[in-house]
Amino acid sequence: MNFSIRKAIKEDMPQVLHLIQELAVFEKEENAVEISVDDLVSDGFGASPLFKCLVAEDSEGIKGIAIMYARYSTWKGPSLHLEDLIVTQKMRGRGIGTALLNEVVTYGNSLGVKRINWEVLDWNEPAIAFYESKGANVMRDWDVVHLNEKAIQNYITNI
Amino acid sequence: MNFSIRKAIKEDMPQVLHLIQELAVFEKEENAVEISVDDLVSDGFGASPLFKCLVAEDSEGIKGIAIMYARYSTWKGPSLHLEDLIVTQKMRGRGIGTALLNEVVTYGNSLGVKRINWEVLDWNEPAIAFYESKGANVMRDWDVVHLNEKAIQNYITNI
Repeated sequence: MNFSIRKAIKEDMPQVLHLIQELAVFEKEENAVEISVDDLVSDGFGASPLFKCLVAEDSEGIKGIAIMYARYSTWKGPSLHLEDLIVTQKMRGRGIGTALLNEVVTYGNSLGVKRINWEVLDWNEPAIAFYESKGANVMRDWDVVHLNEKAIQNYITNI
Repeated sequence: MNFSIRKAIKEDMPQVLHLIQELAVFEKEENAVEISVDDLVSDGFGASPLFKCLVAEDSEGIKGIAIMYARYSTWKGPSLHLEDLIVTQKMRGRGIGTALLNEVVTYGNSLGVKRINWEVLDWNEPAIAFYESKGANVMRDWDVVHLNEKAIQNYITNI
């Protein structure tokens, strides 16, 4: 099939947000997306971008995205975090996810990172099988912890 | 008890690495720490530091650390990642962890982050109880995924 991967530009952000929302629905968190197109533009394309975004597109538009940024491991050193790897539902199984991940790993390797990290829902077996087929280690004993915006405010009030 | 919290300086890094190693042993990963004092100094105290480190110390030395850096959520916006919150084993239960976390949350709030994230081992019940008592949400269905240095090299070879 015919698709290409390129670095995102500001004008892609409406389609990028659409894919972020599509994944949130799949992850049973459809009300969790509070970010706007304007946020993505200002956060990703300012003087100090907070993330790097790749898009996979065919003649009809953007069908997949990868969003990443630098992290740091106190065991290994500089690492790269893959915040989102999303392929729109009806276009899965055509190599778009692999093509995007190839670019992410190539980019991480060019930076010399010691690790590439991401997160996965433990019931998302197709994603887990895909990641494991690529050599990733899904660490089922490590859980993600969030102190959300409201909890931060409560915490501050009680210090 | 008498301890104070301050921003780390380069000269603290040997003691900081010692605490990182102590935690790795507790987490049954004693061979996982590949970083050196020189790495911590160059990564944390250069022109573009890759992390921010706080230390808790008493008259005898450093008894606890917090290491953090910026992340980004495509659902919420800018976030703060708490990579390590470590109190040396024999000094636990004396309020050092809370004092460090207070500083981390106050710092995150001053930045206006939408979330503070970290990771925990699912069998580390004392840590989980501590985090939950502070209002954090331990997301047991979200697992951490790693593509380590060797896997990155294998991946690149097979593209």
